[in-house]
Amino acid sequence: MVCIAVDAMGGDHGPAEILSGVSLFLEAHPDARVQVFGPLDQLLPLIPAKFESRIEPIDAPDIIGMGEAPTRAFRTKKNSPIYKGLDAVKNGRADAFMSAGSTGAVMAFSTLILGRHPRIERPAIATVLSSKQGPVVMLDMGASVDSKPHHLFDFSLLGTAFSRAVLGVQTPRVGLLNIGEEPEKGGVVEQETFGLMSAIGSQYTFVGNVEGRHIFEGVADVVVCDGFVGNNLLKFGEGVASLFFDFFRTESKASLRSMIGAWLLKPAIKSFYQRYDYSEYGGAPLLGVNGISVIAHGKSHAYAIKNALLRAYQSVNGQLIEKMDSALS
Amino acid sequence: MVCIAVDAMGGDHGPAEILSGVSLFLEAHPDARVQVFGPLDQLLPLIPAKFESRIEPIDAPDIIGMGEAPTRAFRTKKNSPIYKGLDAVKNGRADAFMSAGSTGAVMAFSTLILGRHPRIERPAIATVLSSKQGPVVMLDMGASVDSKPHHLFDFSLLGTAFSRAVLGVQTPRVGLLNIGEEPEKGGVVEQETFGLMSAIGSQYTFVGNVEGRHIFEGVADVVVCDGFVGNNLLKFGEGVASLFFDFFRTESKASLRSMIGAWLLKPAIKSFYQRYDYSEYGGAPLLGVNGISVIAHGKSHAYAIKNALLRAYQSVNGQLIEKMDSALS
Repeated sequence: MVCIAVDAMGGDHGPAEILSGVSLFLEAHPDARVQVFGPLDQLLPLIPAKFESRIEPIDAPDIIGMGEAPTRAFRTKKNSPIYKGLDAVKNGRADAFMSAGSTGAVMAFSTLILGRHPRIERPAIATVLSSKQGPVVMLDMGASVDSKPHHLFDFSLLGTAFSRAVLGVQTPRVGLLNIGEEPEKGGVVEQETFGLMSAIGSQYTFVGNVEGRHIFEGVADVVVCDGFVGNNLLKFGEGVASLFFDFFRTESKASLRSMIGAWLLKPAIKSFYQRYDYSEYGGAPLLGVNGISVIAHGKSHAYAIKNALLRAYQSVNGQLIEKMDSALS
Repeated sequence: MVCIAVDAMGGDHGPAEILSGVSLFLEAHPDARVQVFGPLDQLLPLIPAKFESRIEPIDAPDIIGMGEAPTRAFRTKKNSPIYKGLDAVKNGRADAFMSAGSTGAVMAFSTLILGRHPRIERPAIATVLSSKQGPVVMLDMGASVDSKPHHLFDFSLLGTAFSRAVLGVQTPRVGLLNIGEEPEKGGVVEQETFGLMSAIGSQYTFVGNVEGRHIFEGVADVVVCDGFVGNNLLKFGEGVASLFFDFFRTESKASLRSMIGAWLLKPAIKSFYQRYDYSEYGGAPLLGVNGISVIAHGKSHAYAIKNALLRAYQSVNGQLIEKMDSALS
C-alpha cells in the first residue's frame, strides 16, 4: 500500500479543503493511504468516518507562515507539518510527501531532511505542461536562479528520469529553452549548455534549442531552463491565460448574443480549462532530493490537491527515485 | 509632414502586403507620407494612383535573407531597403524607419547607421502589451542577452522616455520583472538592479519587483527585463494564446452546440483577439539609437503594418528622440 504524508495546513483554503482533496484521492485509489500532519484538534473533526482506516492524523502543531524565512523556520519549527511529514518519508514511514504550503519552506526542508542526491548540486522544481501532443516536463520553475551550465545539464537528467518514471516516455526528447534554434543563440550559459547536452549518449534524445512558442506544439518531452526564466514564464503564462478566462466571464454578461454563445460553449470551455489549468497537473515535484516531495499551488482547491496526491502516488509506483538514481549513475 | 521610410521587402507576405499596410496608414493620416525601399520594378506596379503624391519609391535592389549574418550583410548590402531606409533617417530625408524584415539585421543596421545614444551601451527592443488598465511598455524583448545591472537600469530610462513620448504617461511607474516582490528576490543582477532603480529621482516612480502574472493587471507602465527573459516570455505567451485560438477553431466544428456558441461569440472573440494580438500594437521600437526605428513582426499582414507605421508616426509626433535625450542627460 502506498502511503503519502500530507501537510494539512498548507495552502490558501485551510485544512478542510486539503482533507476534501485527500478523500477524492483515496476514493479513486483503494491501494493508497495517507498520513495527515497538523494540529490534532483541527484534524480530528475533518476525518471522514469512511476513510478512518486509511487516514492517520499526526499531531504537528507548529505553523509556518508564508513570509517566514525557511532556514529559520527549519531550526525553530520541528513540529511543523512540513518537517514531520518529510521526516516520515526520510525514515520510511511514508513513501512521498505533498504540501500546498510555502514553496520556499518545502524546498528548503526537503533538501535538508531528505538530502540532495550526491550527483546533484541544485534540486529543481518540475512542472508538467499540456502540449498538443501530450504532457511536457519543464524545469527548473524556480528552485534556484543564476544556473550554471552543469546545473542545466543536471536538470535534463532529472527531467528525463521523471518523464520516464511518471509519464512513461522511454527515451524522452529533451530541449533547451532558448530565443532561437541555432546553437549559437542565447547567452554564455545557454551556449555552453548546448554543448554539454549535444554530447549526451543514450539517456535521451537532444532536440536542440526550443523556443517558448513551440513548447505547446510538443516538440520536446522535457524542456530545460534556469529557474528565474521558468518561474517568470509560468507566471506570465498564467497572466495571459487569465485574460482569456476573464474575457469569457465578461462576455457572458455583455449582450444577449454573447450570453447565449458563452453558455453554449460552457462545457467545452470547462474541459479546456481543466486540460490546461495547473490544477489538472496538480503538483510540481521537487527533483534531485532523495525522496518524493510534491509542491502544490497555494491556491489549490480539493481537485488540485487530489491531482497533486496522484502525482506523488504515480511517482512512487513509477519508481521515480530508482530511475533518478540510475539516470545519474 | 511626417515622412516614414519603409522597407517594402521585409516580412513573410511580400511587398504587396506591405504596400497595403502603407495605404491603410496614409488613408488614416493625411499629414503623413512615406518613402518605400525595394527593387524599383517590383515597387512601381504596387503604388496606388490615389497615393502617388505621398508614396515615393526608392530603388534598393539588394535583398537580405532571414538567415544572413547581419554584420556581413551590412558590409555587402549597401543597396538593401534596410540600409537605404535607415540612411534616409540618418540624413534627415525621413523622420522614422519601419521594417518587418530580419530583426537581427534591423537591430544591427540601426545601431551602425543611426548610432547609439552616447549614454547607452545596449539598445533595447520595446513591446507594448495591453493590460487591463492600458498599455504597458516591456523591454528588452531580445536585442541583447546577459544584461548587466546598468544595462537594465538604462532600459528603465529608455522605457520611461517612450512611455512619456508615445503613450502620454507623464510619470511612468516602472517595475523590474522578478520572481517575487521582495527586494532580495531574483539573481545577482536583479538584486543589484533593484538598488539602482530604488535610487532614482524624479524621472519615474519605481514600483519595485513585478511578477509576470501582474503585468496584465497594469501594476506598472514600464516593465524591465533582460532580453533573454523578455524574448522567451513573449514567445511563451504567444504559445499560450495560440492554444486558446486553436480551441475556438476546433470547437467551432466539434458539435452543433459548440458550433452555434462559437458563431455567436465570433464578433467578441475577434475584438478580443485584436486587442491582445501583436498586430494591434504593431511595431516594436528599437530604443537607445539616435533615430526612430520600428521593427514589425515578420508575420505582419497589412493591418499590423499599418499599426507599426502608426507607432513610428506617434514616435515622431511625440518627440521620442528629444524625450530620450532629456531622460538620459
